[in-house]
Amino acid sequence: QGTAPCGVGAIQVFLSSFLSFLALAASYTDSSDDEVSPREKQQTNSKGSSNFCVKNIKQAEFGRREIEIAEQDMSALISLRKRAQGEKPLAGAKIVGCTHITAQTAVLIETLCALGAQCRWSACNIYSTQNEVAAALAEAGVAVFAWKGESEDDFWWCIDRCVNMDGWQANMILDDGGDLTHWVYKKYPNVFKKIRGIVEESVTGVHRLYQLSKAGKLCVPAMNVNDSVTKQKFDNLYCCRESILDGLKRTTDVMFGGKQVVVCGYGEVGKGCCAALKALGAIVYITEIDPICALQACMDGFRVVKLNEVIRQVDVVITCTGNKNVVTREHLDRMKNSCIVCNMGHSNTEIDVTSLRTPELTWERVRSQVDHVIWPDGKRVVLLAEGRLLNLSCSTVPTFVLSITATTQALALIELYNAPEGRYKQDVYLLPKKMDEYVASLHLPSFDAHLTELTDDQAKYLGLNKNGPFKPNYYR
Amino acid sequence: QGTAPCGVGAIQVFLSSFLSFLALAASYTDSSDDEVSPREKQQTNSKGSSNFCVKNIKQAEFGRREIEIAEQDMSALISLRKRAQGEKPLAGAKIVGCTHITAQTAVLIETLCALGAQCRWSACNIYSTQNEVAAALAEAGVAVFAWKGESEDDFWWCIDRCVNMDGWQANMILDDGGDLTHWVYKKYPNVFKKIRGIVEESVTGVHRLYQLSKAGKLCVPAMNVNDSVTKQKFDNLYCCRESILDGLKRTTDVMFGGKQVVVCGYGEVGKGCCAALKALGAIVYITEIDPICALQACMDGFRVVKLNEVIRQVDVVITCTGNKNVVTREHLDRMKNSCIVCNMGHSNTEIDVTSLRTPELTWERVRSQVDHVIWPDGKRVVLLAEGRLLNLSCSTVPTFVLSITATTQALALIELYNAPEGRYKQDVYLLPKKMDEYVASLHLPSFDAHLTELTDDQAKYLGLNKNGPFKPNYYR
Amino acid sequence: QGTAPCGVGAIQVFLSSFLSFLALAASYTDSSDDEVSPREKQQTNSKGSSNFCVKNIKQAEFGRREIEIAEQDMSALISLRKRAQGEKPLAGAKIVGCTHITAQTAVLIETLCALGAQCRWSACNIYSTQNEVAAALAEAGVAVFAWKGESEDDFWWCIDRCVNMDGWQANMILDDGGDLTHWVYKKYPNVFKKIRGIVEESVTGVHRLYQLSKAGKLCVPAMNVNDSVTKQKFDNLYCCRESILDGLKRTTDVMFGGKQVVVCGYGEVGKGCCAALKALGAIVYITEIDPICALQACMDGFRVVKLNEVIRQVDVVITCTGNKNVVTREHLDRMKNSCIVCNMGHSNTEIDVTSLRTPELTWERVRSQVDHVIWPDGKRVVLLAEGRLLNLSCSTVPTFVLSITATTQALALIELYNAPEGRYKQDVYLLPKKMDEYVASLHLPSFDAHLTELTDDQAKYLGLNKNGPFKPNYYR
Amino acid sequence: QGTAPCGVGAIQVFLSSFLSFLALAASYTDSSDDEVSPREKQQTNSKGSSNFCVKNIKQAEFGRREIEIAEQDMSALISLRKRAQGEKPLAGAKIVGCTHITAQTAVLIETLCALGAQCRWSACNIYSTQNEVAAALAEAGVAVFAWKGESEDDFWWCIDRCVNMDGWQANMILDDGGDLTHWVYKKYPNVFKKIRGIVEESVTGVHRLYQLSKAGKLCVPAMNVNDSVTKQKFDNLYCCRESILDGLKRTTDVMFGGKQVVVCGYGEVGKGCCAALKALGAIVYITEIDPICALQACMDGFRVVKLNEVIRQVDVVITCTGNKNVVTREHLDRMKNSCIVCNMGHSNTEIDVTSLRTPELTWERVRSQVDHVIWPDGKRVVLLAEGRLLNLSCSTVPTFVLSITATTQALALIELYNAPEGRYKQDVYLLPKKMDEYVASLHLPSFDAHLTELTDDQAKYLGLNKNGPFKPNYYR
Repeated sequence: QGTAPCGVGAIQVFLSSFLSFLALAASYTDSSDDEVSPREKQQTNSKGSSNFCVKNIKQAEFGRREIEIAEQDMSALISLRKRAQGEKPLAGAKIVGCTHITAQTAVLIETLCALGAQCRWSACNIYSTQNEVAAALAEAGVAVFAWKGESEDDFWWCIDRCVNMDGWQANMILDDGGDLTHWVYKKYPNVFKKIRGIVEESVTGVHRLYQLSKAGKLCVPAMNVNDSVTKQKFDNLYCCRESILDGLKRTTDVMFGGKQVVVCGYGEVGKGCCAALKALGAIVYITEIDPICALQACMDGFRVVKLNEVIRQVDVVITCTGNKNVVTREHLDRMKNSCIVCNMGHSNTEIDVTSLRTPELTWERVRSQVDHVIWPDGKRVVLLAEGRLLNLSCSTVPTFVLSITATTQALALIELYNAPEGRYKQDVYLLPKKMDEYVASLHLPSFDAHLTELTDDQAKYLGLNKNGPFKPNYYR
Repeated sequence: QGTAPCGVGAIQVFLSSFLSFLALAASYTDSSDDEVSPREKQQTNSKGSSNFCVKNIKQAEFGRREIEIAEQDMSALISLRKRAQGEKPLAGAKIVGCTHITAQTAVLIETLCALGAQCRWSACNIYSTQNEVAAALAEAGVAVFAWKGESEDDFWWCIDRCVNMDGWQANMILDDGGDLTHWVYKKYPNVFKKIRGIVEESVTGVHRLYQLSKAGKLCVPAMNVNDSVTKQKFDNLYCCRESILDGLKRTTDVMFGGKQVVVCGYGEVGKGCCAALKALGAIVYITEIDPICALQACMDGFRVVKLNEVIRQVDVVITCTGNKNVVTREHLDRMKNSCIVCNMGHSNTEIDVTSLRTPELTWERVRSQVDHVIWPDGKRVVLLAEGRLLNLSCSTVPTFVLSITATTQALALIELYNAPEGRYKQDVYLLPKKMDEYVASLHLPSFDAHLTELTDDQAKYLGLNKNGPFKPNYYR
Repeated sequence: QGTAPCGVGAIQVFLSSFLSFLALAASYTDSSDDEVSPREKQQTNSKGSSNFCVKNIKQAEFGRREIEIAEQDMSALISLRKRAQGEKPLAGAKIVGCTHITAQTAVLIETLCALGAQCRWSACNIYSTQNEVAAALAEAGVAVFAWKGESEDDFWWCIDRCVNMDGWQANMILDDGGDLTHWVYKKYPNVFKKIRGIVEESVTGVHRLYQLSKAGKLCVPAMNVNDSVTKQKFDNLYCCRESILDGLKRTTDVMFGGKQVVVCGYGEVGKGCCAALKALGAIVYITEIDPICALQACMDGFRVVKLNEVIRQVDVVITCTGNKNVVTREHLDRMKNSCIVCNMGHSNTEIDVTSLRTPELTWERVRSQVDHVIWPDGKRVVLLAEGRLLNLSCSTVPTFVLSITATTQALALIELYNAPEGRYKQDVYLLPKKMDEYVASLHLPSFDAHLTELTDDQAKYLGLNKNGPFKPNYYR
Repeated sequence: QGTAPCGVGAIQVFLSSFLSFLALAASYTDSSDDEVSPREKQQTNSKGSSNFCVKNIKQAEFGRREIEIAEQDMSALISLRKRAQGEKPLAGAKIVGCTHITAQTAVLIETLCALGAQCRWSACNIYSTQNEVAAALAEAGVAVFAWKGESEDDFWWCIDRCVNMDGWQANMILDDGGDLTHWVYKKYPNVFKKIRGIVEESVTGVHRLYQLSKAGKLCVPAMNVNDSVTKQKFDNLYCCRESILDGLKRTTDVMFGGKQVVVCGYGEVGKGCCAALKALGAIVYITEIDPICALQACMDGFRVVKLNEVIRQVDVVITCTGNKNVVTREHLDRMKNSCIVCNMGHSNTEIDVTSLRTPELTWERVRSQVDHVIWPDGKRVVLLAEGRLLNLSCSTVPTFVLSITATTQALALIELYNAPEGRYKQDVYLLPKKMDEYVASLHLPSFDAHLTELTDDQAKYLGLNKNGPFKPNYYR
């Protein structure tokens, strides 16, 4: 379903939950009950409600602890809750949601509830649900339908259970990947027509919305959260700066100092990777197709080369292009022994992994997410995550970054729900710059950062409102 | 006239010429003839032409050397000359130009000539002409009317001499600041109507063009070179990264290591300054009004503060806001002894210098561009360039950066001159992204950078033409 | 036993093995036989030898793979093997060793064998043995006596089995921590007297040797490998630069960008930590007692403060002092919620952890190596590794760094074994600078680095031998 | 005379004064009196004294301003003056000095006077005297004998006038280069014998002292200030980090971003240069003869190459080796057009400039300190300062750095003058570590840095005195 944009994107929550799961598995696994499908279980929470379907409601307490930990790094949402204690800007909102279900989304969902909304929730990925978090949500009264390891059939069943409920009709959609939106659009056209707004955060989901809009079939205003400034900057540049080191270290324990690395692509993702690697003492080469990015790479102190020029000498190859077949079998054949190959770009097409699945090459799984591909002469190439996103598979995403996305989603919902008739037509909208700025401002206290305010005189001189927006809408 | 945008802008050529002038003054000053106005002199070049007006045609050889040195860092223009040796894309073009007249613009002008154009040129600033370069241009047959130290009357006389010539009617305008454009528009409306295109590079000039366009009086297509991607990135981020150190060092010999610096404004200019200062061991604080930039500053490792919080402790204050009265008298009163104050923003309003011109404060000029302002208790504040642009006044701009702007201007002229009827209406245009990319690509050989080409398959996958443009038009 | 110096020291191998163990545990655990002590088992390797005592000889193949992976990053030792293929510089050497038993030490031990030595080996730490590696060594014919989870009695039994063997008398000692040396000195004084050299790499072991020497009881030349230049530089500055990020990330998933961090101590360890944290966007403060280091911190762009000045505002506290009670209960009381506290210094005394074990505070273990200490008002302090060395407990040490130490140990053994009578007296020696340089040169090919050779003329001018040493002996 | 060590050394004051001179020349040049030798002039200061010989006593006021500016960055000396207001630790000291005479040395000299000493002073270099500063000293009552542009005969005459005075016999020497010491030793052996201490700061002077000592002819204790820790660290690493950028920029206006630079030598000087260049976006290669430094370069992220491998591609070549003929004619022949070549090492031998003075090459002086050497095919190599020290010739040294050296000199004088009989023999001594630390601590207030004090308990634990020294004597 929902696929991530270049960078870490929303789907990365997957990993976070995956790792947490691993770390905590021992405490809550109840293997005896692993065999039974949640759909067949009878469960009630402590208040007697059965309006949910999760793996094991007994894990609720454990999940609550995870949510509390997440809350500590999501103070923007907590402060939203506080500001909206009096007025409930989402009073009356009936939100149906479909996202990864993790501690971080739980903080979002509970914030929406605190703002007055009723929520029904399913998972946008069959593997990414943190079962104990789902349990905690269910215990707290959220109608959540999700577990780790759903079948395809389970997946749609869960979505349907969210939408199809007697006496409750959704008027808002929060989606990640577009599956929920598509389901409502197809199966419940009457519900769809009365939706007041859709908030979508994935590249794929946004793409689907634009297509619907183009085809004249989008009868609801939708907000494209994916392309908001703060999300782009944080999810790509800053987040990759952190996760490239982490992903490489956790999988290979490689020493960065003195390593020769080639990074394919010098967009925001590539820039983040390069900054971190250079800072830790690696010697970084860039490949680029775009002369403007190439010129930036030059000015930033990187040699811009063709992959062939350096492929024999480099210790690490990282793809960040959004393109396909950037690293071909021919390149792989020429790499030196022990060369590490991984992908930080948008999908698993950048490295031609398929070309490695041939009889003359031996694959050896040496660690989780780490394969040695062995040539007949003994040369080994170290392939990470089978060419899938490294930061999705082998590192974590800081809760703080997820907080920015979640806050943006919450604000987009509030805006669409409360917008006066006519402000939004049946189209896909970018977040107004002012709201982007508001999201940013909510995250400044974490850094103890103090904004300066314009004087009246200065605002007049600049032709700006003292409260923003400070940037033109085309700024990114 | 033309004022520079945040960053270094075109007008900075001024300094470059100024310093060169100083350095070289001894060799060519001919004081006996300093008194006579060029307008009253009779001069002919070695081919017998008098179709120019410069300070002293005898300085031509010296100016030629300066031009040759500049050519070494402007290989993009040189390669343009080579590519256009067969076809002359500007054959028939009659260009009237008004820019700073320096070694770098000379390389541009001579490139335009090599591409087939006839050129007549004046200066956009009464102080910025490098006399020996003007002489070299005149000797080479360019009709140049400019000298260092023109009066206001001289200034308009020179412009008029460029436009008003029997038997020669301009069909293209290259302007920096909008004065030439305005003069043609007002005085020669019939010429103006037949102009095929205007290329303008300054903020001010572009502003004037948009106003003209809004008023429905722009009857000619115009190209806004100022907002091209390469110019913005290079003139601001990268150029300031280099010039802030140079400007501070040349004026004050300050040691950067361990200095506490507050930078007001974290746009591209501020980002460039901060990167350089941090790299050299300074401790940098940021002030910002915009939460998005503030959040970037946080993630980049700078504390975001209000000016008042740090004003007592900092060693250096740098303004990069584009705003006015950012540093007020109150701030100046609270600074510690020896604090250095300077401006890298867009004009001399950022520091309230006027407030320092009061009887109780003593000004002491300690070096060129360096004043000590002395409080009654003996405290000294070190004010650079009287609050004017530091990098304009006290450092140089690398020829390489000027090459990018000059190449962009040349390409814009070619595009407008050769565009098929109807491609450009009577409006102000941004440079097409593809041309931005072309300018960038012409500068890559200087770095020995090698671009990667898309395969057909990849281009199809990405939905791109193999030759670009690679970026959407809204990219910046 | 052997404790690590500031930095990562030898004992860190512990972690490496620990993590590998975790990662690989599933594959080789044979739980049915876990109960029986290896001392009571009858095991023979495939050649019929029983001259060893390990957990499970059947794990040999698995361990061999680990050793092979390690060999890839220890090319210096492999090249030593090659260079010594003809002459066997350790022919006749009978080495008794006591170190961590990991894939990396296995590469060392097998190198010693390849150089002609006979080896008997025990573990210097009861927890740090990689069982499968020990099995692989045993299978390859090395007399190894070690397993993970020895009792104190087992520990000394294993050491004794190495030394006390009929018909085989050790003439060289390789020790890490000094326990083996002490055992031979006390129990087998006659063997001790005939030892030709001791090589010791730990701070503790070296300290014991100096004491013995002072007391006039050291009747054997000993080499202090701990204080060699390459080891110091790599184990401290460079290694900590890598491991501080890794250790923090693996335990807390903390985002570095914008975090306020105080690092106590700006020696080599502190310098490494600060460089990495600053590079990733953290704002770093330093505390120092030594004005020279403090001045370096200033010049490197860090504010030097007293801990009290910043303790309320920082997000992370890292100790690197080698001192005790640097972070006191009073400091801990004043930290803000979620503050992370950890130690990169030489022992677990730097943070006063004991002071936290009081009834009013609640400890919550949230992950392996991560405790939340909770104050009555709900404030949580995140304590890593209970104040023990972070990089020992929560990150890995690159094999490349271990290679430097292992190569140094091998060379020290060769030097002592082959030194002409009289070169070394009954004293503790530092590695000759020339050998330090040789170790460095063996590691340059990994970086494809090419040394320049002095011409005869230049060597003469500098008063140096063309082959080094290039540095005075006092250089460090 | 006195030549500088690797790094910036004391002699660099030369440049500082030179530039100041240029900048200020207009204000005080009195050309009519330039022709007369100061030795032939009759001058008296305002108190009627004629006990000096300077260019022009009338320049005193102007020089006083320069001294006052310098005092602002030399607060360590000012605080020394304050601490010694009561006791005069140099009461009775009769110091004869021979150093560069600049604003910074003037602050030192006047500090010595404030501490109770009587001073007579000459210049250690015939060009480096700031005339107006000498005038200010004379006006203030210091017996100074020095002017810019002395002849060789003048030079020794001035030195002699300092030593040879009726009724005044020097008991301390402060020397820079060893000429004064040599003069006293040769001409006034009876004075020499009674000297209580010599303080010498130059490499050359120290070398001469060690020779004298070796020959058994040094009958006076001498302090080697050159090798103190603070001086080494500041004069080399930190100072070069700042001056390499400044020197290149002032001479060539080169843009650093994307430039390929090879730095020969990765000692402290090379490390400083590389750090700065890399930080500003240059791509830096290293050549090294020493494997330890080479390995550090690798870990710091630089490729280690032989000069030949990169000589065709680099834009800048910088020598920092202390060796000779590092850049040969052969290398120069292979450089690309516009390559910049300069020297940051210890003398003008590193680049084989002599080899360029051949008929087939044309030299063109394009700016002060900048020559274009032109090959027959038109290729130009840009040679800076004719291969002499770049930072001495083309940049300034921050006063703060000079303050460290000056403070060290003052303390060394106090120590030698007050040391109890027997503490110092007739030998050359390094500054005690504790004094090094004291110098450092005197400079911390400039950075508002706050040292932490050891508790009694901690001091005991570390085996240190609470007041230092904190480092072993062998630390550097």
